[in-house]
Amino acid sequence: MPRYRSVLFAPGNRADLIEKLPRSQPDAVVIDLEDAIPNNENAKTEAREIARVSIEKLLTSNPKCAVFLRVNAVSSGWFQADMEFTRGLTGIVVPKIERPEQLDAVDEALEGKDLQLIVGIETARGVERVRELLHPPVTAVYFGAEDFVADMNGVRTTESLEVLYARSQVVLAARVRGVQALDIIEAKFRDLEAFRASGTTGRSLGYTGKMCIHPDQVAIANGVFSPSASDLERAEKLLDAYEKAAFYGSGVIEFEGQMVDEPMLARAKMMLEADDEVMK
Amino acid sequence: MPRYRSVLFAPGNRADLIEKLPRSQPDAVVIDLEDAIPNNENAKTEAREIARVSIEKLLTSNPKCAVFLRVNAVSSGWFQADMEFTRGLTGIVVPKIERPEQLDAVDEALEGKDLQLIVGIETARGVERVRELLHPPVTAVYFGAEDFVADMNGVRTTESLEVLYARSQVVLAARVRGVQALDIIEAKFRDLEAFRASGTTGRSLGYTGKMCIHPDQVAIANGVFSPSASDLERAEKLLDAYEKAAFYGSGVIEFEGQMVDEPMLARAKMMLEADDEVMK
Amino acid sequence: MPRYRSVLFAPGNRADLIEKLPRSQPDAVVIDLEDAIPNNENAKTEAREIARVSIEKLLTSNPKCAVFLRVNAVSSGWFQADMEFTRGLTGIVVPKIERPEQLDAVDEALEGKDLQLIVGIETARGVERVRELLHPPVTAVYFGAEDFVADMNGVRTTESLEVLYARSQVVLAARVRGVQALDIIEAKFRDLEAFRASGTTGRSLGYTGKMCIHPDQVAIANGVFSPSASDLERAEKLLDAYEKAAFYGSGVIEFEGQMVDEPMLARAKMMLEADDEVMK
Repeated sequence: MPRYRSVLFAPGNRADLIEKLPRSQPDAVVIDLEDAIPNNENAKTEAREIARVSIEKLLTSNPKCAVFLRVNAVSSGWFQADMEFTRGLTGIVVPKIERPEQLDAVDEALEGKDLQLIVGIETARGVERVRELLHPPVTAVYFGAEDFVADMNGVRTTESLEVLYARSQVVLAARVRGVQALDIIEAKFRDLEAFRASGTTGRSLGYTGKMCIHPDQVAIANGVFSPSASDLERAEKLLDAYEKAAFYGSGVIEFEGQMVDEPMLARAKMMLEADDEVMK
Repeated sequence: MPRYRSVLFAPGNRADLIEKLPRSQPDAVVIDLEDAIPNNENAKTEAREIARVSIEKLLTSNPKCAVFLRVNAVSSGWFQADMEFTRGLTGIVVPKIERPEQLDAVDEALEGKDLQLIVGIETARGVERVRELLHPPVTAVYFGAEDFVADMNGVRTTESLEVLYARSQVVLAARVRGVQALDIIEAKFRDLEAFRASGTTGRSLGYTGKMCIHPDQVAIANGVFSPSASDLERAEKLLDAYEKAAFYGSGVIEFEGQMVDEPMLARAKMMLEADDEVMK
Repeated sequence: MPRYRSVLFAPGNRADLIEKLPRSQPDAVVIDLEDAIPNNENAKTEAREIARVSIEKLLTSNPKCAVFLRVNAVSSGWFQADMEFTRGLTGIVVPKIERPEQLDAVDEALEGKDLQLIVGIETARGVERVRELLHPPVTAVYFGAEDFVADMNGVRTTESLEVLYARSQVVLAARVRGVQALDIIEAKFRDLEAFRASGTTGRSLGYTGKMCIHPDQVAIANGVFSPSASDLERAEKLLDAYEKAAFYGSGVIEFEGQMVDEPMLARAKMMLEADDEVMK
């Protein structure tokens, strides 16, 4: 499966924004029929129509773009209708998964189509049961901190310690099941340093990409979730030093003040490999 | 179930303190036969007698006061005798629950009486199994950080990162099961700023009330666990702005520098509703 | 089981370092055939030979030293050969345990020998399933943060918030099952203040000892995981004050600005008892 460093959202009813999505060069784009659209029949129906036309145009003008559609939750009244047009899509995004039966419903609605499936874990129940919710055909998961904290009746803070448990549990479950984990959005979209800090924390936890709600966030996500030139250089140097030492029989070396052994070596190798795999 | 922002404890053997409990206007009071009373037969028996008389007086002079009795743990030798007088009480508090069988014993001892049940999760085992321990007739749960850390052989710190995992796990399990979660005590009772900071963290995690061990803590708990006037005003404004935008078909607005969509809207609504429900 | 405050590692192929291990007075030493030795047949075979001879010498010159051998993971090709010589050892250390079947394999390879068993939880899978992995004959567990973060494809930071969830989950599971928990290594071995800070955090979480990769870390670990003279004095004073108050019927006292009740009393008692039990 490809790994998406940046996944940029646009409201499904905004043809103008959908058209511009590829400009900031996100690894994937999501046309949103859920949270970005008011919860009423007219708005959802209208958005679905606008999205359909806009996606066709997008695919014609940017055939290589990875395009996802975020449908409404399985338990909403809009899920089935949202799932009806999936032609040309790379995959769908299904929000607020919290029970295995909901995954079965998604699987059925997919009718065997070859689509990637990104699920959202963003409720108390979803976080508690996340280990049961990341089976195939799920290919990626995002942790929705805003929805989760709303569901917990909690308060979002800059430090985000209130979601550290949930954010850690989701990425751990994803790693064990070989599913890509996408990090939380940053609602204060003008504060790019907050976005970078949040992404850096997400990356430290094992997230390998981030959801973006504004084009300016994309380049930062692409940067945070790619090894930097100096990271790569350091990894190369470390590998060189280690291999030289191993040749003389030693499996531990000192490198820039750290005791380096097999696990750190593994991390350096993983970084160099990941750099090859990433969508560019 | 009512939601208690502040739950004030007094030792069961202190008639003078029990009498004064309502003065600071806590949402609920707890007469404690457990940790506040030395672990010996004489002290426990004497406390039970003093508590019985004091509670009767309290109920007579403050008939609207929500009065709880904290009994000794099910596994202690004192539980059955503690459970014998529950007349007039709003409910009981059972500490150190760690196995489902203990809940069965509580259920049996309640003999079908219409009492609220607050349980304490405050041991390593209780935290690990919390998901099995919050079934009816449990109506609320408190996380006992002091006892938990004592059981872990750990160290309490001001930052409380040593209990972040357990504190998060308990409130998550409570939310999934529709049980109110009461936040940790603050032992340094003269440090009201520490109490406020701890309550603010608890609230960010989803706790909706706090245990108090000193009357001065009550007003702070009531404040922290109520939306402030400016919070409420902001929520009203956000709702207005959102509804106006939704009328024109948009489900995303910018409000005070944040991208606002359905989940944030839900949180604003929840705050305004919770303000109506709270015990005042 | 004895409790080890400091567990000092040396590479299995370094006779010179193994010989010097006892000098810094660690509570236990580990001769490492795993991460410290390059992952190839020649290096592993050679290390095994050097380790065998060095351990014999070590046991002769330091008969009271608690000596462990860290073998390669059960899933590696080297586990069986590593397990073949265990004569004189206090126990073995088995890294990267992540499935109950691996414990069965260890149990079988132990052939009923009376050896202590320290297991390493240091992969995403191991952390997720840790509750199933600490059964007898396991006597202690270490959390391997470097390997865990490498497996998560995350990033190690000074604050270590990226491992707080896993580090908390491992020590909790250990406490519930009566297994000693050993805290993470500090790779920047020259930064002794970082080591002390990390140990202090580990101790707050309930870890009772720490893995050391350099002799200079040993004295700090021994200090951090022993109560200080002033801690002990304070605990004695608290006990005295409490007993005096309990004599007069009170179970709550104020002591140095804190409300002290039975759980804090329990912690003070535990500290004084632990001071007697520790390996010195």
